[in-house]
Amino acid sequence: MNRVEEQHKHFMRAAIQIAQEGMDRNDGGPFGCVIVKEGKIIGRGNNQVTSSNDPTAHAEVVAIRAACANLSSFQLEDCIIYTSCEPCPMCLGAIYWARPKQVFYACSREDAAAIEFDDEFIYQELNLAISDRKIPTQQLLQKEGQVVFKNWMTKQDKIAY
Amino acid sequence: MNRVEEQHKHFMRAAIQIAQEGMDRNDGGPFGCVIVKEGKIIGRGNNQVTSSNDPTAHAEVVAIRAACANLSSFQLEDCIIYTSCEPCPMCLGAIYWARPKQVFYACSREDAAAIEFDDEFIYQELNLAISDRKIPTQQLLQKEGQVVFKNWMTKQDKIAY
Repeated sequence: MNRVEEQHKHFMRAAIQIAQEGMDRNDGGPFGCVIVKEGKIIGRGNNQVTSSNDPTAHAEVVAIRAACANLSSFQLEDCIIYTSCEPCPMCLGAIYWARPKQVFYACSREDAAAIEFDDEFIYQELNLAISDRKIPTQQLLQKEGQVVFKNWMTKQDKIAY
Repeated sequence: MNRVEEQHKHFMRAAIQIAQEGMDRNDGGPFGCVIVKEGKIIGRGNNQVTSSNDPTAHAEVVAIRAACANLSSFQLEDCIIYTSCEPCPMCLGAIYWARPKQVFYACSREDAAAIEFDDEFIYQELNLAISDRKIPTQQLLQKEGQVVFKNWMTKQDKIAY
């Protein structure tokens, strides 16, 4: 086995260990994540949904926030994400906004469904027309909302991203 | 116009105002959100990605966190989310995990794309096979990851959600 592959396994084992430790502390579900840049861990996270009363505190989101704080950047340039389970749609969205260079995952979404963390419902909902979603969703005051967007377009000192 | 509809508009205008104010403060993009329970705002959020170096700090995520902290709950039971723009896939995932009863949005995803906040790429990626994603994504050490999941299944004091 080559050195690069061994290093990937090393960091994935760190993510898996964080999953176990977080679960042992009753922080939340059995999920862990580490983010690596230039061979060093720059962010760690484990699921903390139930302990922190934060439904967004999935391992990947916690780790992305920690890594970005560490880098003082809202982008994970040249970073690799190691997560103990395939990211849910929320975390996948977060990963795409953060733009790391690579992602490794251990357990599959089917493994997660088998322990009753089922993302499949959310994947299905994302693809439905808004009018068909299980959480009733309606548009309201579009024109008033668009005024802010027009103001954004003409704003001189904006930081685009 | 009936009273209920007037109330929905009142809260959507609050979300739109928060979007404008956040943009004026250079917190981030022009997006705002309020979460309402029993006729009262229990959480507010505006996009703070660039100012807080947090790619997950979209208006909806910030508001969900605030509302959940306020309720001391990881679920938004009986809550209504008013967001100034159709949620991106990350925020939609967060909304489904938080389980509010209803969602209102003002601007559409097309309006957002027109001011260069384009979620379409993320929607497309979510539906691709993992091997076809733009951010290279690979499975690694599945069996070692599954050990933690097995431990979760037999854990006696777990808080399922």
